[in-house]
Amino acid sequence: MRIGVLGTGMVGRAIAGRLAALGHDVRVGSRTAGDGAVEFADAAAHGELLFNCTSGAGSLEALTAAGERNLAGKTLIDVSNPLDFSSGGPALFTTSTESLGERIQAAFPDARVVKSLNTVNCNLMVDPASLPGDHVIFVCGNEEAAKAQARDLLGELGWPPERVIDLGDITGARGAEMYVMLWVRLWGVVGSAHFNVALLSGS
Amino acid sequence: MRIGVLGTGMVGRAIAGRLAALGHDVRVGSRTAGDGAVEFADAAAHGELLFNCTSGAGSLEALTAAGERNLAGKTLIDVSNPLDFSSGGPALFTTSTESLGERIQAAFPDARVVKSLNTVNCNLMVDPASLPGDHVIFVCGNEEAAKAQARDLLGELGWPPERVIDLGDITGARGAEMYVMLWVRLWGVVGSAHFNVALLSGS
Repeated sequence: MRIGVLGTGMVGRAIAGRLAALGHDVRVGSRTAGDGAVEFADAAAHGELLFNCTSGAGSLEALTAAGERNLAGKTLIDVSNPLDFSSGGPALFTTSTESLGERIQAAFPDARVVKSLNTVNCNLMVDPASLPGDHVIFVCGNEEAAKAQARDLLGELGWPPERVIDLGDITGARGAEMYVMLWVRLWGVVGSAHFNVALLSGS
Repeated sequence: MRIGVLGTGMVGRAIAGRLAALGHDVRVGSRTAGDGAVEFADAAAHGELLFNCTSGAGSLEALTAAGERNLAGKTLIDVSNPLDFSSGGPALFTTSTESLGERIQAAFPDARVVKSLNTVNCNLMVDPASLPGDHVIFVCGNEEAAKAQARDLLGELGWPPERVIDLGDITGARGAEMYVMLWVRLWGVVGSAHFNVALLSGS
Protein backbone atom coordinates (compact mmCIF):
# COMPACT_ATOMS: atom_id res chain seq x y z
CA MET A 1 0.00 0.00 0.00
CA ARG A 2 1.20 3.53 -0.65
CA ILE A 3 1.60 5.21 2.72
CA GLY A 4 2.63 8.74 3.60
CA VAL A 5 4.20 9.27 7.01
CA LEU A 6 4.29 12.89 8.11
CA GLY A 7 7.06 13.60 10.57
CA THR A 8 10.71 12.58 10.77
CA GLY A 9 11.05 12.36 14.53
CA MET A 10 11.45 9.10 16.44
CA VAL A 11 7.80 8.18 15.93
CA GLY A 12 7.77 8.86 12.21
CA ARG A 13 11.01 6.99 11.65
CA ALA A 14 9.85 3.99 13.68
CA ILE A 15 6.53 3.74 11.86
CA ALA A 16 7.95 4.39 8.40
CA GLY A 17 10.74 1.89 8.90
CA ARG A 18 8.40 -0.83 10.07
CA LEU A 19 5.85 -0.20 7.30
CA ALA A 20 8.59 -0.33 4.69
CA ALA A 21 9.88 -3.59 6.18
CA LEU A 22 6.35 -4.96 5.85
CA GLY A 23 6.52 -4.22 2.13
CA HIS A 24 4.58 -0.97 1.94
CA ASP A 25 5.56 1.81 -0.42
CA VAL A 26 6.34 4.51 2.14
CA ARG A 27 7.26 8.13 1.73
CA VAL A 28 8.24 10.18 4.74
CA GLY A 29 7.28 13.84 4.77
CA SER A 30 9.06 16.73 6.42
CA ARG A 31 8.97 20.51 6.29
CA THR A 32 11.88 20.43 3.88
CA ALA A 33 13.04 17.58 1.67
CA GLY A 34 16.30 15.79 2.40
CA ASP A 35 17.73 12.94 4.44
CA GLY A 36 15.36 10.49 2.83
CA ALA A 37 12.31 12.64 3.40
CA VAL A 38 10.21 14.49 0.85
CA GLU A 39 8.11 17.58 1.54
CA PHE A 40 4.89 17.10 3.50
CA ALA A 41 2.76 17.65 0.40
CA ASP A 42 4.65 15.06 -1.62
CA ALA A 43 4.37 12.42 1.09
CA ALA A 44 0.66 13.19 1.51
CA ALA A 45 0.02 13.05 -2.24
CA HIS A 46 1.84 9.72 -2.42
CA GLY A 47 -0.10 7.98 0.33
CA GLU A 48 -3.43 6.20 -0.01
CA LEU A 49 -3.27 6.21 3.79
CA LEU A 50 -1.44 8.71 5.99
CA PHE A 51 0.13 8.82 9.41
CA ASN A 52 0.46 12.06 11.34
CA CYS A 53 3.62 11.60 13.39
CA THR A 54 4.47 15.27 13.75
CA SER A 55 4.70 16.89 17.16
CA GLY A 56 1.31 17.91 18.47
CA ALA A 57 2.19 21.59 18.60
CA GLY A 58 3.14 21.49 14.92
CA SER A 59 0.51 19.10 13.59
CA LEU A 60 -2.00 21.56 12.18
CA GLU A 61 0.74 23.50 10.43
CA ALA A 62 2.26 20.32 9.02
CA LEU A 63 -1.11 19.07 7.80
CA THR A 64 -1.82 22.45 6.22
CA ALA A 65 1.51 22.18 4.41
CA ALA A 66 0.55 18.64 3.38
CA GLY A 67 -2.46 20.16 1.68
CA GLU A 68 -6.15 19.68 2.29
CA ARG A 69 -6.61 18.09 -1.15
CA ASN A 70 -3.90 15.53 -0.41
CA LEU A 71 -5.71 14.48 2.78
CA ALA A 72 -9.24 14.40 1.39
CA GLY A 73 -10.92 11.01 1.49
CA LYS A 74 -7.89 9.34 3.06
CA THR A 75 -7.56 7.59 6.36
CA LEU A 76 -5.27 9.72 8.51
CA ILE A 77 -3.93 7.86 11.53
CA ASP A 78 -3.15 10.56 14.05
CA VAL A 79 -0.43 9.53 16.46
CA SER A 80 0.28 13.00 17.82
CA ASN A 81 -0.18 14.24 21.37
CA PRO A 82 -1.05 17.80 22.40
CA LEU A 83 1.99 18.03 24.64
CA ASP A 84 3.19 21.41 25.81
CA PHE A 85 6.57 21.68 27.52
CA SER A 86 6.60 25.48 27.59
CA SER A 87 5.95 25.57 31.34
CA GLY A 88 8.73 23.09 32.14
CA GLY A 89 6.93 19.88 32.98
CA PRO A 90 4.63 18.16 30.51
CA ALA A 91 1.17 19.62 30.07
CA LEU A 92 -1.49 19.54 27.37
CA PHE A 93 -2.39 22.54 25.27
CA THR A 94 -5.96 21.24 25.02
CA THR A 95 -8.70 21.17 27.63
CA SER A 96 -10.94 18.25 28.55
CA THR A 97 -13.69 19.35 26.15
CA GLU A 98 -11.57 19.03 23.04
CA SER A 99 -8.61 17.06 21.76
CA LEU A 100 -5.98 17.42 19.11
CA GLY A 101 -7.61 14.59 17.17
CA GLU A 102 -10.83 16.59 17.05
CA ARG A 103 -9.02 19.77 16.07
CA ILE A 104 -7.41 17.96 13.17
CA GLN A 105 -10.71 16.42 12.09
CA ALA A 106 -12.40 19.83 12.28
CA ALA A 107 -9.63 21.54 10.34
CA PHE A 108 -9.65 18.84 7.64
CA PRO A 109 -13.24 17.62 7.47
CA ASP A 110 -12.60 15.54 4.35
CA ALA A 111 -9.83 13.55 5.98
CA ARG A 112 -10.90 10.39 7.83
CA VAL A 113 -9.05 10.87 11.10
CA VAL A 114 -8.40 7.87 13.33
CA LYS A 115 -6.62 8.55 16.60
CA SER A 116 -4.38 5.68 17.57
CA LEU A 117 -0.96 4.61 18.85
CA ASN A 118 -0.47 7.84 20.82
CA THR A 119 -0.59 5.98 24.15
CA VAL A 120 2.60 3.95 23.80
CA ASN A 121 6.26 4.51 23.09
CA CYS A 122 7.27 4.36 19.43
CA ASN A 123 9.14 1.08 19.81
CA LEU A 124 6.05 -0.54 21.24
CA MET A 125 3.84 0.97 18.52
CA VAL A 126 5.57 -1.08 15.88
CA ASP A 127 6.58 -4.10 17.96
CA PRO A 128 3.92 -4.77 20.57
CA ALA A 129 5.11 -8.37 20.99
CA SER A 130 8.29 -7.01 22.55
CA LEU A 131 6.20 -6.52 25.69
CA PRO A 132 4.54 -9.77 26.83
CA GLY A 133 0.93 -9.71 27.95
CA ASP A 134 -2.44 -8.58 26.70
CA HIS A 135 -1.73 -4.87 26.68
CA VAL A 136 -3.99 -2.75 24.54
CA ILE A 137 -4.09 0.04 22.00
CA PHE A 138 -6.97 2.44 21.36
CA VAL A 139 -8.62 3.62 18.17
CA CYS A 140 -11.32 6.20 17.68
CA GLY A 141 -12.71 8.12 14.75
CA ASN A 142 -15.91 9.13 13.05
CA GLU A 143 -15.79 6.67 10.14
CA GLU A 144 -16.07 2.94 10.63
CA ALA A 145 -14.37 2.17 7.31
CA ALA A 146 -11.37 4.26 8.29
CA LYS A 147 -11.17 2.56 11.67
CA ALA A 148 -11.34 -0.83 9.97
CA GLN A 149 -8.44 0.17 7.75
CA ALA A 150 -6.49 1.38 10.79
CA ARG A 151 -7.23 -1.90 12.58
CA ASP A 152 -5.86 -3.84 9.61
CA LEU A 153 -2.66 -1.84 9.68
CA LEU A 154 -2.40 -2.21 13.45
CA GLY A 155 -2.74 -5.94 12.90
CA GLU A 156 0.18 -5.83 10.49
CA LEU A 157 2.20 -3.98 13.12
CA GLY A 158 1.46 -6.82 15.54
CA TRP A 159 -1.63 -5.68 17.44
CA PRO A 160 -4.14 -8.55 17.57
CA PRO A 161 -7.78 -7.49 16.98
CA GLU A 162 -8.84 -8.33 20.53
CA ARG A 163 -6.28 -5.90 21.89
CA VAL A 164 -7.47 -2.97 19.77
CA ILE A 165 -10.04 -1.06 21.85
CA ASP A 166 -12.51 1.07 19.90
CA LEU A 167 -13.32 4.21 21.90
CA GLY A 168 -16.01 5.32 19.45
CA ASP A 169 -16.00 8.57 17.54
CA ILE A 170 -13.16 11.07 17.45
CA THR A 171 -14.17 12.63 20.78
CA GLY A 172 -12.66 9.47 22.27
CA ALA A 173 -9.33 11.15 21.55
CA ARG A 174 -9.90 13.27 24.67
CA GLY A 175 -9.43 10.32 26.97
CA ALA A 176 -6.66 8.75 24.89
CA GLU A 177 -4.71 12.02 24.85
CA MET A 178 -5.32 12.90 28.50
CA TYR A 179 -4.13 9.44 29.51
CA VAL A 180 -0.73 10.56 28.29
CA MET A 181 -0.40 12.73 31.40
CA LEU A 182 -0.63 9.51 33.44
CA TRP A 183 1.69 7.75 30.98
CA VAL A 184 4.39 10.35 31.57
CA ARG A 185 4.15 9.77 35.30
CA LEU A 186 4.20 5.99 34.90
CA TRP A 187 7.30 6.35 32.74
CA GLY A 188 9.03 7.76 35.79
CA VAL A 189 7.71 4.97 38.01
CA VAL A 190 8.62 2.15 35.63
CA GLY A 191 11.96 3.74 34.76
CA SER A 192 11.56 3.01 31.07
CA ALA A 193 9.09 3.71 28.28
CA HIS A 194 8.65 0.00 27.62
CA PHE A 195 5.29 -0.41 29.33
CA ASN A 196 1.61 -0.36 28.58
CA VAL A 197 -1.72 -1.10 30.21
CA ALA A 198 -3.98 -4.10 29.90
CA LEU A 199 -7.72 -3.78 30.30
CA LEU A 200 -9.25 -6.21 32.76
CA SER A 201 -12.99 -6.47 32.99
CA GLY A 202 -15.46 -8.78 34.67
CA SER A 203 -19.13 -9.19 35.19
CA MET B 1 -8.78 3.32 63.88
CA ARG B 2 -11.05 6.36 64.06
CA ILE B 3 -11.87 7.32 60.49
CA GLY B 4 -13.94 10.19 59.13
CA VAL B 5 -15.52 9.70 55.73
CA LEU B 6 -16.72 12.92 54.10
CA GLY B 7 -19.52 12.35 51.65
CA THR B 8 -22.64 10.23 51.67
CA GLY B 9 -22.81 9.35 47.98
CA MET B 10 -22.12 5.90 46.59
CA VAL B 11 -18.39 6.26 47.13
CA GLY B 12 -18.66 7.45 50.71
CA ARG B 13 -21.16 4.74 51.61
CA ALA B 14 -19.07 2.00 50.00
CA ILE B 15 -15.88 3.07 51.76
CA ALA B 16 -17.51 3.73 55.12
CA GLY B 17 -19.35 0.43 55.04
CA ARG B 18 -16.25 -1.55 54.24
CA LEU B 19 -14.10 0.24 56.81
CA ALA B 20 -16.73 -0.36 59.49
CA ALA B 21 -16.89 -4.04 58.51
CA LEU B 22 -13.11 -4.17 58.95
CA GLY B 23 -13.59 -3.00 62.53
CA HIS B 24 -12.77 0.68 62.22
CA ASP B 25 -14.62 3.34 64.18
CA VAL B 26 -16.15 5.24 61.27
CA ARG B 27 -18.19 8.43 61.18
CA VAL B 28 -19.69 9.61 57.93
CA GLY B 29 -19.93 13.36 57.35
CA SER B 30 -22.48 15.26 55.34
CA ARG B 31 -23.58 18.86 54.93
CA THR B 32 -26.37 18.21 57.39
CA ALA B 33 -26.63 15.50 60.02
CA GLY B 34 -29.16 12.69 59.62
CA ASP B 35 -29.58 9.26 58.06
CA GLY B 36 -26.58 7.94 59.97
CA ALA B 37 -24.36 10.84 58.99
CA VAL B 38 -23.00 13.61 61.20
CA GLU B 39 -21.96 17.06 60.02
CA PHE B 40 -18.71 17.33 58.07
CA ALA B 41 -16.94 18.98 61.01
CA ASP B 42 -17.94 16.24 63.43
CA ALA B 43 -16.79 13.45 61.11
CA ALA B 44 -13.52 15.27 60.50
CA ALA B 45 -12.95 15.89 64.19
CA HIS B 46 -13.63 12.22 64.91
CA GLY B 47 -11.19 10.80 62.40
CA GLU B 48 -7.49 10.23 62.92
CA LEU B 49 -7.54 9.64 59.18
CA LEU B 50 -10.02 11.10 56.68
CA PHE B 51 -11.47 10.20 53.31
CA ASN B 52 -12.75 12.86 50.94
CA CYS B 53 -15.56 11.15 49.06
CA THR B 54 -17.51 14.27 48.18
CA SER B 55 -18.16 15.23 44.58
CA GLY B 56 -15.23 17.06 43.04
CA ALA B 57 -17.22 20.22 42.43
CA GLY B 58 -18.17 20.36 46.11
CA SER B 59 -14.96 19.13 47.70
CA LEU B 60 -13.36 22.43 48.68
CA GLU B 61 -16.60 23.64 50.20
CA ALA B 62 -17.10 20.38 52.09
CA LEU B 63 -13.54 20.45 53.40
CA THR B 64 -13.96 24.06 54.44
CA ALA B 65 -17.06 23.03 56.36
CA ALA B 66 -15.07 20.15 57.86
CA GLY B 67 -12.73 22.77 59.25
CA GLU B 68 -9.05 23.40 58.64
CA ARG B 69 -8.22 22.55 62.25
CA ASN B 70 -9.96 19.19 61.97
CA LEU B 71 -7.85 18.31 58.92
CA ALA B 72 -4.50 19.55 60.22
CA GLY B 73 -1.83 16.89 60.57
CA LYS B 74 -4.15 14.14 59.34
CA THR B 75 -3.84 11.91 56.30
CA LEU B 76 -6.64 12.89 53.93
CA ILE B 77 -7.26 10.28 51.26
CA ASP B 78 -8.78 12.21 48.39
CA VAL B 79 -10.99 10.02 46.21
CA SER B 80 -12.72 12.88 44.38
CA ASN B 81 -12.59 13.67 40.68
CA PRO B 82 -12.87 17.14 39.12
CA LEU B 83 -15.78 16.08 36.95
CA ASP B 84 -17.93 18.69 35.32
CA PHE B 85 -21.20 17.65 33.69
CA SER B 86 -22.42 21.19 33.07
CA SER B 87 -21.76 20.93 29.34
CA GLY B 88 -23.57 17.62 29.00
CA GLY B 89 -20.84 15.05 28.56
CA PRO B 90 -18.19 14.53 31.18
CA ALA B 91 -15.37 17.04 31.33
CA LEU B 92 -12.87 18.18 33.95
CA PHE B 93 -13.01 21.59 35.58
CA THR B 94 -9.23 21.52 35.93
CA THR B 95 -6.53 21.95 33.28
CA SER B 96 -3.48 19.77 32.76
CA THR B 97 -1.27 22.02 34.90
CA GLU B 98 -3.24 21.49 38.06
CA SER B 99 -5.47 18.91 39.70
CA LEU B 100 -8.14 18.80 42.33
CA GLY B 101 -5.75 16.93 44.60
CA GLU B 102 -3.32 19.83 44.36
CA ARG B 103 -6.06 22.40 44.91
CA ILE B 104 -7.08 20.60 48.10
CA GLN B 105 -3.49 20.35 49.30
CA ALA B 106 -2.95 24.05 48.58
CA ALA B 107 -6.17 25.06 50.32
CA PHE B 108 -5.36 22.94 53.38
CA PRO B 109 -1.57 22.94 53.65
CA ASP B 110 -1.59 21.24 57.04
CA ALA B 111 -3.57 18.25 55.78
CA ARG B 112 -1.53 15.37 54.38
CA VAL B 113 -3.36 14.78 51.13
CA VAL B 114 -2.99 11.43 49.38
CA LYS B 115 -4.80 11.04 46.08
CA SER B 116 -6.01 7.50 45.58
CA LEU B 117 -8.90 5.24 44.55
CA ASN B 118 -10.34 7.83 42.14
CA THR B 119 -9.55 5.65 39.11
CA VAL B 120 -11.95 2.78 39.84
CA ASN B 121 -15.62 2.27 40.53
CA CYS B 122 -16.62 2.34 44.20
CA ASN B 123 -17.34 -1.40 44.34
CA LEU B 124 -13.86 -2.14 43.08
CA MET B 125 -12.32 0.37 45.50
CA VAL B 126 -13.38 -1.72 48.48
CA ASP B 127 -13.34 -5.17 46.87
CA PRO B 128 -10.54 -5.34 44.31
CA ALA B 129 -10.53 -9.16 44.45
CA SER B 130 -13.94 -9.11 42.78
CA LEU B 131 -12.03 -8.45 39.55
CA PRO B 132 -9.40 -11.13 38.86
CA GLY B 133 -5.97 -10.11 37.64
CA ASP B 134 -3.16 -7.81 38.65
CA HIS B 135 -4.99 -4.56 38.14
CA VAL B 136 -3.56 -1.55 39.90
CA ILE B 137 -4.41 1.47 42.01
CA PHE B 138 -2.45 4.71 42.24
CA VAL B 139 -1.33 6.81 45.19
CA CYS B 140 0.41 10.15 45.23
CA GLY B 141 1.06 12.80 47.82
CA ASN B 142 3.75 15.00 49.27
CA GLU B 143 4.34 13.08 52.52
CA GLU B 144 5.79 9.60 52.57
CA ALA B 145 4.34 8.83 55.99
CA ALA B 146 0.85 9.70 54.80
CA LYS B 147 1.28 7.55 51.69
CA ALA B 148 2.48 4.68 53.87
CA GLN B 149 -0.66 5.04 55.98
CA ALA B 150 -2.80 5.11 52.85
CA ARG B 151 -1.04 2.00 51.55
CA ASP B 152 -1.79 0.19 54.79
CA LEU B 153 -5.47 1.05 54.49
CA LEU B 154 -5.50 0.07 50.82
CA GLY B 155 -4.03 -3.24 51.91
CA GLU B 156 -6.89 -3.71 54.35
CA LEU B 157 -9.31 -3.00 51.52
CA GLY B 158 -7.67 -5.78 49.53
CA TRP B 159 -5.06 -4.02 47.40
CA PRO B 160 -1.76 -5.94 47.64
CA PRO B 161 1.32 -3.71 47.98
CA GLU B 162 2.69 -4.66 44.56
CA ARG B 163 -0.46 -3.39 42.91
CA VAL B 164 -0.31 0.03 44.57
CA ILE B 165 1.58 2.33 42.18
CA ASP B 166 3.22 5.38 43.74
CA LEU B 167 3.04 8.31 41.30
CA GLY B 168 5.17 10.53 43.50
CA ASP B 169 4.12 13.86 44.91
CA ILE B 170 0.64 15.33 44.71
CA THR B 171 1.19 16.62 41.18
CA GLY B 172 0.77 12.98 40.18
CA ALA B 173 -2.94 13.61 40.74
CA ARG B 174 -2.99 15.33 37.34
CA GLY B 175 -2.47 12.08 35.49
CA ALA B 176 -4.64 10.05 37.84
CA GLU B 177 -7.52 12.50 37.45
CA MET B 178 -7.13 13.00 33.69
CA TYR B 179 -7.15 9.23 33.22
CA VAL B 180 -10.77 9.39 34.36
CA MET B 181 -11.68 10.87 30.97
CA LEU B 182 -10.40 7.64 29.42
CA TRP B 183 -12.10 5.60 32.15
CA VAL B 184 -15.48 7.11 31.25
CA ARG B 185 -14.99 6.10 27.63
CA LEU B 186 -13.84 2.60 28.59
CA TRP B 187 -16.94 2.28 30.74
CA GLY B 188 -18.97 2.60 27.56
CA VAL B 189 -16.79 0.08 25.74
CA VAL B 190 -16.82 -2.50 28.52
CA GLY B 191 -20.51 -1.93 29.23
CA SER B 192 -19.98 -1.95 32.99
CA ALA B 193 -17.92 -0.13 35.57
CA HIS B 194 -16.37 -3.38 36.75
CA PHE B 195 -13.00 -2.95 35.05
CA ASN B 196 -9.54 -1.63 35.69
CA VAL B 197 -6.11 -1.52 34.12
CA ALA B 198 -3.04 -3.58 34.79
CA LEU B 199 0.43 -2.16 34.27
CA LEU B 200 2.70 -4.33 32.15
CA SER B 201 6.34 -3.42 31.87
CA GLY B 202 9.43 -5.06 30.50
CA SER B 203 13.07 -4.39 29.95
